[in-house]
Amino acid sequence: MKILVINGPNINMLGIREKHIYGTTTYEDLCRYIREESKSLAEVNIVQSNIEGELINYIQGAYGDYDGIVMNPGAYTHYSIAIYDALVAVQIPTVEVHISNIHKREEFRHKSVTAAACLGQISGFGIYGYIMGIMALINNKKSN
Amino acid sequence: MKILVINGPNINMLGIREKHIYGTTTYEDLCRYIREESKSLAEVNIVQSNIEGELINYIQGAYGDYDGIVMNPGAYTHYSIAIYDALVAVQIPTVEVHISNIHKREEFRHKSVTAAACLGQISGFGIYGYIMGIMALINNKKSN
Amino acid sequence: MKILVINGPNINMLGIREKHIYGTTTYEDLCRYIREESKSLAEVNIVQSNIEGELINYIQGAYGDYDGIVMNPGAYTHYSIAIYDALVAVQIPTVEVHISNIHKREEFRHKSVTAAACLGQISGFGIYGYIMGIMALINNKKSN
Amino acid sequence: MKILVINGPNINMLGIREKHIYGTTTYEDLCRYIREESKSLAEVNIVQSNIEGELINYIQGAYGDYDGIVMNPGAYTHYSIAIYDALVAVQIPTVEVHISNIHKREEFRHKSVTAAACLGQISGFGIYGYIMGIMALINNKKSN
Amino acid sequence: MKILVINGPNINMLGIREKHIYGTTTYEDLCRYIREESKSLAEVNIVQSNIEGELINYIQGAYGDYDGIVMNPGAYTHYSIAIYDALVAVQIPTVEVHISNIHKREEFRHKSVTAAACLGQISGFGIYGYIMGIMALINNKKSN
Amino acid sequence: MKILVINGPNINMLGIREKHIYGTTTYEDLCRYIREESKSLAEVNIVQSNIEGELINYIQGAYGDYDGIVMNPGAYTHYSIAIYDALVAVQIPTVEVHISNIHKREEFRHKSVTAAACLGQISGFGIYGYIMGIMALINNKKSN
Amino acid sequence: MKILVINGPNINMLGIREKHIYGTTTYEDLCRYIREESKSLAEVNIVQSNIEGELINYIQGAYGDYDGIVMNPGAYTHYSIAIYDALVAVQIPTVEVHISNIHKREEFRHKSVTAAACLGQISGFGIYGYIMGIMALINNKKSN
Amino acid sequence: MKILVINGPNINMLGIREKHIYGTTTYEDLCRYIREESKSLAEVNIVQSNIEGELINYIQGAYGDYDGIVMNPGAYTHYSIAIYDALVAVQIPTVEVHISNIHKREEFRHKSVTAAACLGQISGFGIYGYIMGIMALINNKKSN
Amino acid sequence: MKILVINGPNINMLGIREKHIYGTTTYEDLCRYIREESKSLAEVNIVQSNIEGELINYIQGAYGDYDGIVMNPGAYTHYSIAIYDALVAVQIPTVEVHISNIHKREEFRHKSVTAAACLGQISGFGIYGYIMGIMALINNKKSN
Amino acid sequence: MKILVINGPNINMLGIREKHIYGTTTYEDLCRYIREESKSLAEVNIVQSNIEGELINYIQGAYGDYDGIVMNPGAYTHYSIAIYDALVAVQIPTVEVHISNIHKREEFRHKSVTAAACLGQISGFGIYGYIMGIMALINNKKSN
Amino acid sequence: MKILVINGPNINMLGIREKHIYGTTTYEDLCRYIREESKSLAEVNIVQSNIEGELINYIQGAYGDYDGIVMNPGAYTHYSIAIYDALVAVQIPTVEVHISNIHKREEFRHKSVTAAACLGQISGFGIYGYIMGIMALINNKKSN
Amino acid sequence: MKILVINGPNINMLGIREKHIYGTTTYEDLCRYIREESKSLAEVNIVQSNIEGELINYIQGAYGDYDGIVMNPGAYTHYSIAIYDALVAVQIPTVEVHISNIHKREEFRHKSVTAAACLGQISGFGIYGYIMGIMALINNKKSN
Repeated sequence: MKILVINGPNINMLGIREKHIYGTTTYEDLCRYIREESKSLAEVNIVQSNIEGELINYIQGAYGDYDGIVMNPGAYTHYSIAIYDALVAVQIPTVEVHISNIHKREEFRHKSVTAAACLGQISGFGIYGYIMGIMALINNKKSN
Repeated sequence: MKILVINGPNINMLGIREKHIYGTTTYEDLCRYIREESKSLAEVNIVQSNIEGELINYIQGAYGDYDGIVMNPGAYTHYSIAIYDALVAVQIPTVEVHISNIHKREEFRHKSVTAAACLGQISGFGIYGYIMGIMALINNKKSN
Repeated sequence: MKILVINGPNINMLGIREKHIYGTTTYEDLCRYIREESKSLAEVNIVQSNIEGELINYIQGAYGDYDGIVMNPGAYTHYSIAIYDALVAVQIPTVEVHISNIHKREEFRHKSVTAAACLGQISGFGIYGYIMGIMALINNKKSN
Repeated sequence: MKILVINGPNINMLGIREKHIYGTTTYEDLCRYIREESKSLAEVNIVQSNIEGELINYIQGAYGDYDGIVMNPGAYTHYSIAIYDALVAVQIPTVEVHISNIHKREEFRHKSVTAAACLGQISGFGIYGYIMGIMALINNKKSN
Repeated sequence: MKILVINGPNINMLGIREKHIYGTTTYEDLCRYIREESKSLAEVNIVQSNIEGELINYIQGAYGDYDGIVMNPGAYTHYSIAIYDALVAVQIPTVEVHISNIHKREEFRHKSVTAAACLGQISGFGIYGYIMGIMALINNKKSN
Repeated sequence: MKILVINGPNINMLGIREKHIYGTTTYEDLCRYIREESKSLAEVNIVQSNIEGELINYIQGAYGDYDGIVMNPGAYTHYSIAIYDALVAVQIPTVEVHISNIHKREEFRHKSVTAAACLGQISGFGIYGYIMGIMALINNKKSN
Repeated sequence: MKILVINGPNINMLGIREKHIYGTTTYEDLCRYIREESKSLAEVNIVQSNIEGELINYIQGAYGDYDGIVMNPGAYTHYSIAIYDALVAVQIPTVEVHISNIHKREEFRHKSVTAAACLGQISGFGIYGYIMGIMALINNKKSN
Repeated sequence: MKILVINGPNINMLGIREKHIYGTTTYEDLCRYIREESKSLAEVNIVQSNIEGELINYIQGAYGDYDGIVMNPGAYTHYSIAIYDALVAVQIPTVEVHISNIHKREEFRHKSVTAAACLGQISGFGIYGYIMGIMALINNKKSN
Repeated sequence: MKILVINGPNINMLGIREKHIYGTTTYEDLCRYIREESKSLAEVNIVQSNIEGELINYIQGAYGDYDGIVMNPGAYTHYSIAIYDALVAVQIPTVEVHISNIHKREEFRHKSVTAAACLGQISGFGIYGYIMGIMALINNKKSN
Repeated sequence: MKILVINGPNINMLGIREKHIYGTTTYEDLCRYIREESKSLAEVNIVQSNIEGELINYIQGAYGDYDGIVMNPGAYTHYSIAIYDALVAVQIPTVEVHISNIHKREEFRHKSVTAAACLGQISGFGIYGYIMGIMALINNKKSN
Repeated sequence: MKILVINGPNINMLGIREKHIYGTTTYEDLCRYIREESKSLAEVNIVQSNIEGELINYIQGAYGDYDGIVMNPGAYTHYSIAIYDALVAVQIPTVEVHISNIHKREEFRHKSVTAAACLGQISGFGIYGYIMGIMALINNKKSN
Repeated sequence: MKILVINGPNINMLGIREKHIYGTTTYEDLCRYIREESKSLAEVNIVQSNIEGELINYIQGAYGDYDGIVMNPGAYTHYSIAIYDALVAVQIPTVEVHISNIHKREEFRHKSVTAAACLGQISGFGIYGYIMGIMALINNKKSN
């Protein structure tokens, strides 16, 4: 199984950004952790961009090439109808992941525009959420 | 690790209820599945009730006895401030699980009142979500 | 035809409760009236509870046993997504009945959460509404 | 007892209009059905108009002449304060009838502006709802 | 000065309709009163209709013929953008009159859609409001 | 008949303030105009204040001394529940007057908090509105 | 191809009404223009009414007789659920046309209640929009 | 005077639950405190339940037996129309008490659905609020 | 203990104002009652003003001089952020008191802007509420 | 006449994306179709981007070079104030085109943020809408 | 250049009020600081009041006497339409200043009613904001 | 002190764009003006982009390199949670600047999503606002 991990805006600031929420793990740590933990599970590639349209480019580019997407759309989660449209267009099983529990944060982070185009959503389990997302994609494939 | 799985209203109708959303797995199948899959991971007990206040009783009863809760509050997810209060009161790490992707369903199911009192939320991965919840509790314990 | 009449919270206070709205008929009078008037129409049983989850238990219990439900969910009409889910789960033809005209009362009583899971709704015709509900179920059966 | 049945906009399109919602009964069938079924119950006349103000004319014209109105205001149900005012003005006992269950349809059909000026509302029982409305008027007269 | 008095839906029910709000004056009394009191002030004609579009016809018909309009749009006040458009189209100085104080009644009567197309609005002074409207038109002409 | 004219905040800036809305008449002109035009109609006193609580003092002070109030609450119209309470407390027949047509201006000026405590409201007829208010009070007294 | 052009309230005031928005073309000019420009394209008839229900009559009357409708519902665009219902009932391909760009005008003109029952909507191209509507109907027929 | 103290969901977790809000007093301490402090004032019984419908049972059971109720409906305060209905039904003078100041907490705790069925509400004075409630019931009886 | 009682707008109209809500007790009676009943409890001074800013002056003036405030902000309760700011600034323990049960009155009286700056709120117990407020301040001092 | 066709996010997925809405025409087909059909009408260039800011770059780049823009902003239609600002800045006549009828789709697609900066909007006529847009620009030029 | 600095409610509590937000600078310090820092820039007078109407008096009094106003309306910023009207009436260039960043505080402080009547707004720079306001007025004068 | 000036979408159209709002100064003039005026104050670099994600790149790139940011996020001010997140992540003191007074423009421009992540906001002082922003950063550094 071939899985693309797509990270949205400011995820690359991990370890610098709001440490009381996201902890001290850096973005490099995150990438290493995902690669390490998923090694035996699937073939995984990781990309990141701060640009909404580039994230759409990544999603479109995965069409016909990847079996699943694990996506953390960052702040675009809450307003990007364009990313929602891209996910609906390619119809690749996608898991939306959030490092923090978005229901415990500001009101505007409670609502996800993109989750309705995904298989499901995982929120609040730190970087372990990415591994959960990969396992969910594998389990989903087995059940179908 | 000792984990309590709490199922809310109408989860016991699984297999009868809206098959196009929930599939044909019955509630007994669900319980058997959870027990089977979690056997090697943790000590797991499962309870169910249609009564909001009894769910609160289960949460309060877990205080001092369980290390984690995996909870599917069913429809109460969307309006039970009382369950939210119970979870905040006992401070047991809790994972909220939904079998279907609530973001793909009616508007009133998009909002969770209870998730803000939980470690995190998992939604849309079928009954596998319960196993993901148990794994998340274990992983959470390890990181602390 | 076997019909279950389910009365929700405070319907048992009839005759005591707000007489300018509900009149002086007591709950016992209501039960007797329903039994009397429906005798020649169908086999009718009547239950009542103030507890939301017990009303769900009654609905679930009717599954496979009753051909129709006449339900007055009382105040739960306006916020119980859990009862709505239970009615959708069992798929028994159900008629929602209100003794008073809910559209003439407080704003928050205008909206029904549960009616969308029913065959239809009857509101404002006093206790005669229960008989209308039974007749509607019989007529519905004939047309199908 | 003398009853006026008033049908609002597009009810005359029955049998042509959205058959998955309203069935194949034509408007002529509806009129014949009402006349047939109510023959032994009351003296019934039926009128129809697509024009909001003509419906008001019918309501005003019933003043001093009819003992009851069974009204299906069609789409005007949801915004005609003018029809509401007319019903309040003449104070003839009126039953609002809807062929389909308006609570199962679009959000904007859930709210009735006119029902608060009526004895009660019946929704979701097909054309049988008109007969239920007539019976409710007769029962109402007996109780007063 | 030539003035058209236009009365909207249910104003013709005066004396029958909600006497605790509108008093016992009949519509004929109203017409006679307006004619009597305005005799020395202006040439006044009075029309009434329950039909929104006919009220628009009256407004359009006044174009090039009348110097002012005194209009009581009844319930259409609160939702008829079409009447608003008609008034803006003809640009005849118009006074909106309400017999009762609309600010003391139901929430939905507080807002006027049509008043923004008028010179001004008078509300709450009973049938004397029509005379005030005529005087306001005369005074307005003098000041311009 | 003894009438108190109460002017609220910024009415004293007439002639200086937004001439395209209020014209070039100064506040002194306004007072002179009211006194002149009402001379033969009633005994009229005029007060003004920019302070919400002083307007309440004027209203309370009128209790037992005046037969009617003509009030232009200025911007307080839109948010002063305290003035509303004062008018309800003294129960002196009051007419609310606005020089401009508040329905033609900003959205927040369309709503009046104070009008519900008044006999009625007059809006849009320039300073002539004050005279209309006085006439309305006199007519109201005659009818009672 | 046989097409009915239906014009709603106040379109007949063209050339008189708000010239800064609609220009100086009169309604007669509009009709002549449509007939002229569509001569070689289709058989076109034009009707107009200020009455909501008469517009519904025209729509219903087109059933079985016309292949397409070009409709400018005027102000009814924004609140007539009854016209929406009529269009859904007859299922004739309909194009909604607005002379001005409704998105540039008042907030309440941004929303169309009727467009969801149409093939599509054209807004802002002056009277040329009617010709565009006719061409769209022809193109639509060709593609099906 | 005979008074029933009814405690709603999670009040029994006092001393365990959010100590920074509720302090370290346990539920047993609370009961003892109320009994001690009210000994000389009235005959007081105390009940508690986490189940909405059981709280309604307690209210209904108090009918004809108690002279007053002091109720802390916990989280049900904010959404239980059913409890509101029960209080209106029995018409026993009731005081709503909240240990914390609900106006200082989350937005959803600012609104009380149940208080409108009570004599009054006391909020923010810790467990002393219960004694204030008992004194208020006694004072209320004296004044009537 | 030294306590300042601050009364807001229209409280001085007690006995005159809406007797069906506030009873016939005059403002002088209220002051005498408070002084009488609190004599043995604390040193109490009473002030009143209709002016929002003067109420703020009283609050600021209490700084360093009083141990507690009992405040009835009248209508300012519902919109005065300025009074809220003043209470937060001085940090004197304050009890908000309302003579009537604000939850039983108009919707706009249900919300308190000022209560969040207070120790707590008492509503619905008539003038006895002031004494309850004083007792609550004393009890609060004892517990700290 | 020189026209720039600008396609927004996911339009390049045509033929892959939601075929039940957009059909099987690919993006290449669309481009060929536009070029073919517009050949005799105008000089047309086509660009596409998924990136909001690049669309703005295209708009700004058209300044001084193009006579008109036909733009399908895709999902950005509903939230890009930045694109709206760009269109207002360059003041090139622009036609907004949507392939599907946005009024028949999800609520959030009914509102256009960008249309108010355009000449007009065309929605629901499939890819023919682009040709209609080009014709509208040509017609617009002729009329000015 | 002659500038009036107007401070609204509770600004005089600086140094006492919420030190974590406003710091320990007292109001006297603020006045001294402004005078000191502006000495070489302009002739500056400072006034303060807690009374909304007195702030209006200050604004009106500045008419014809001052070249600019620097105003901190305190809590009135968020609801005083009357101050907004006063600023519009006098048309003196005004700068609105807030010591704290109002966008970082409670939701209700994000909105300014008064800023729309000002040249501009400065928020979040502590007491230095007053000096920035004075410099902005001077710069504004130079550019005109 | 090293300061980065970041300009968002369409700021580069200055002098072309809406001259009645922004004046005739071109973007080059703006850059020259900022450089000129800030020369003696700080080391200043200026960047601009129409792409939301590139603005985030600039913010992230400033981390560890710049002491302050002066940012005009253009239209992204009103919806870019992603820019808000970037500013919070880098924790560089930032001043939000708007050339026009956003409170005087369309409703949707009144709200800033990004300002809560800034030191403060300056709006309405033309291009001088940039210099004010630089001075505010310098003053802020001095006070810390």
